[in-house]
Amino acid sequence: MENSSKQWRFEGNKRLNSASAISVRGVLDVVIGNLSTDDLRPTIPLGNGDPSQFACFRTSTTAEEAIVDAVHSAKYNGYAPTVGVLSARRAIANYLNRDLPYKLSADDIYVTSGCLQAIEVALAAINRPGANILLPRPGFTFYESRAAYEHLQVRHFDLLPARGWEVDVDAIEALADDNTVAIVIINPGNPCGSVSSYDHLKMVAETARKIGILVIADEVYSHLTFGSTPFVPMGIFGSIVPVLSLGSISKRWVVPGWRLGWLVTSDPNGILQKSGIVESITGFLNISTDPATFIQGAIPQILENTKDDFFSKVIATLKEAADKCFDGIREVPCLTCPKKPEGSMFVMVKLNVSLLEDISDDLDFCMKLAKEESVIIVPAGMAFGMKNWLRVTFACEISALEDGLRRIKAFHQRHVRKQ
Amino acid sequence: MENSSKQWRFEGNKRLNSASAISVRGVLDVVIGNLSTDDLRPTIPLGNGDPSQFACFRTSTTAEEAIVDAVHSAKYNGYAPTVGVLSARRAIANYLNRDLPYKLSADDIYVTSGCLQAIEVALAAINRPGANILLPRPGFTFYESRAAYEHLQVRHFDLLPARGWEVDVDAIEALADDNTVAIVIINPGNPCGSVSSYDHLKMVAETARKIGILVIADEVYSHLTFGSTPFVPMGIFGSIVPVLSLGSISKRWVVPGWRLGWLVTSDPNGILQKSGIVESITGFLNISTDPATFIQGAIPQILENTKDDFFSKVIATLKEAADKCFDGIREVPCLTCPKKPEGSMFVMVKLNVSLLEDISDDLDFCMKLAKEESVIIVPAGMAFGMKNWLRVTFACEISALEDGLRRIKAFHQRHVRKQ
Ligand SMILES: Cc1ncc(COP(=O)(O)O)c(C=O)c1O
Ligand SMILES: Cc1ncc(COP(=O)(O)O)c(C=O)c1O
Repeated sequence: MENSSKQWRFEGNKRLNSASAISVRGVLDVVIGNLSTDDLRPTIPLGNGDPSQFACFRTSTTAEEAIVDAVHSAKYNGYAPTVGVLSARRAIANYLNRDLPYKLSADDIYVTSGCLQAIEVALAAINRPGANILLPRPGFTFYESRAAYEHLQVRHFDLLPARGWEVDVDAIEALADDNTVAIVIINPGNPCGSVSSYDHLKMVAETARKIGILVIADEVYSHLTFGSTPFVPMGIFGSIVPVLSLGSISKRWVVPGWRLGWLVTSDPNGILQKSGIVESITGFLNISTDPATFIQGAIPQILENTKDDFFSKVIATLKEAADKCFDGIREVPCLTCPKKPEGSMFVMVKLNVSLLEDISDDLDFCMKLAKEESVIIVPAGMAFGMKNWLRVTFACEISALEDGLRRIKAFHQRHVRKQ
Repeated sequence: MENSSKQWRFEGNKRLNSASAISVRGVLDVVIGNLSTDDLRPTIPLGNGDPSQFACFRTSTTAEEAIVDAVHSAKYNGYAPTVGVLSARRAIANYLNRDLPYKLSADDIYVTSGCLQAIEVALAAINRPGANILLPRPGFTFYESRAAYEHLQVRHFDLLPARGWEVDVDAIEALADDNTVAIVIINPGNPCGSVSSYDHLKMVAETARKIGILVIADEVYSHLTFGSTPFVPMGIFGSIVPVLSLGSISKRWVVPGWRLGWLVTSDPNGILQKSGIVESITGFLNISTDPATFIQGAIPQILENTKDDFFSKVIATLKEAADKCFDGIREVPCLTCPKKPEGSMFVMVKLNVSLLEDISDDLDFCMKLAKEESVIIVPAGMAFGMKNWLRVTFACEISALEDGLRRIKAFHQRHVRKQ
């Protein structure tokens, strides 16, 4: 049958397309698309936060066997309850309670398909006509995408490189208005690799309370710290301000492909219940897909039995990589790091294009670096609205990282402006 | 810190709450909430389509071992590509190609977190301001919920009990207007247990073509047929009208908790590409969570190696259960089945309340049945807008089904109106 002349009434969803245009995934696809097939060297992936392909970051056998046991039990082949498998909720509560001054119960825990779905839930649950949220810049663009998709307005506050990427707390009050409902804090930080102190987080909590908004605390990198500042969960301040804490096993266990995370109401005073947020959390989960049930079934074993030496090894590798990365970048004149990373898997790097001959901006830098050196890094202008900044992941095998840094250096030398 | 007097600016999302109010999950929660703790007999779950808890429906060892192998390989711990793992996409294309007159390629396949996420994707991708879609009544309320959440308008066409739950094709043209973009067909049918013939599906395809809309073919129950009508995939008519085919391993492999499904562009003429639908599919997936990567990694083994005797055993059990269910219900005077089920796991049953003394409607029937007999069935008024109908799942262990039917009979006798 001939279709060329036929008129069809459907078309793509333009709002959706523009919401998705700002994803890091999308930006990375552009950069990766510029890799040269002529380069026979391995590609060095300093783009996304997923070191699972490297042998030194292989997850613990405890976690693998927990999955195998759950599958073999055949107890977890069916649909899970909307809010998650009860034993998983209990285990997550116990896991988080180690670091809290009060006790979460299983009822405070909603099991999600990775921290990504926890973000979907949180933004959907707080949305109402005209509402806006405060997001960090630079931040994690999935928030911007979901907000655009949800018609939730966004206002950005800055993270200050001169102050180790602390939140510009003074600016927050001026930014909020009567329609502001929440502020997002990512700690340990992506893309900055910063870790917020107890005092700083408390100040953020008090500011949020003063305005009357809740805090969405993205703690997907919790416990991945290797500097002088320890990780402090925002939920500690749950009696100052209601907190939705988001997390997952993706980063600490290096299994982002397992898609298991959580959204937690860290709110000893029950304000999220009274204000209807809890009802909307369940409402969204009711009309969404779930994480695989047997992975939920494996969670108690994973959280309770993973050995400390697995975590120490990951931290030691990340620390060594962060140091190498920081030192290596310091040797490249067109690049500067305002702050040595202390957590997560990333560092933000300022690019000085005036030192280069034929590089117009951060995107141009990343595209040419991909083509000429098969090194992938994220242009922060396109990805985070930070023109002429780059986000570099140091979470990879040390030898690959060193190779990548050498190639960046060679790239710089080839493109440096002659006096 | 005292919070009682504090004013907070956030509140729940009312639109979300009302979208979620119409979920079968929500309705089932209400009915299950009415179970009596005094009844020491086991609860008979004839509510949702998940027989995985019964030993006779345990999934194949091939599928279990495929998962175990994928986990042990450690090749699938990382994030998957937006559209899915390539080997899984290839395997799904091959699996579906067995029943098609043309060849799908891996590019036509989008791996999703169950058929539920495929529905999310499909409705998001076709949405535009003012658009509406045509949905079957009775149908699967997840469509209504997602449409409400997406601001996508809904128009219902009837499935006709007197014609074996066929689509009322004549009514469709009158129902559509310039803003209609798609029609949803669920075959084999939930909640009716009906299976559409080749000729009927072709007529639907031609009607959709005439109007200029695409077909969303929900085939999550594909191959679960046990009557005289064989399963015909809608994609066969992909050159008449572009089809988005949705499916999963949830039902045929009895693993709904594994959350692995697909959305497929069954469209040999590439109209979905030209019209921008394909871009929006990827766009939505870019800003959504994914199915677990290692489950995707297991898909080739699952689809290629599952033995036929596993499928035959499931079909034989379903057929026996459907027969038992149909016969058992015929013995209850207040209940009638217009059509013996030929596929899926469900049958629609008409309730005649005038024969009962103290039962006001289908919800009342289900609530009291839960309380008095610990049998769970779905009230179709609340769940599907079919007042005084019930949806009964026959997919359970035969002995449990028989027990459930006996309890329904006893319930009827206790409540029957005395002359
Ligand atoms: C800040 C932040 N939040 C959430 C996520 C998503 O985590 P998950 O893999 O658990 O969905 C990421 C992933 O990189 C992240 O960087
Ligand atoms: C018609 C229909 N579509 C989709 C689904 C969801 O399937 P999955 O478990 O693959 O998400 C169901 C589940 O019952 C269904 O009945």
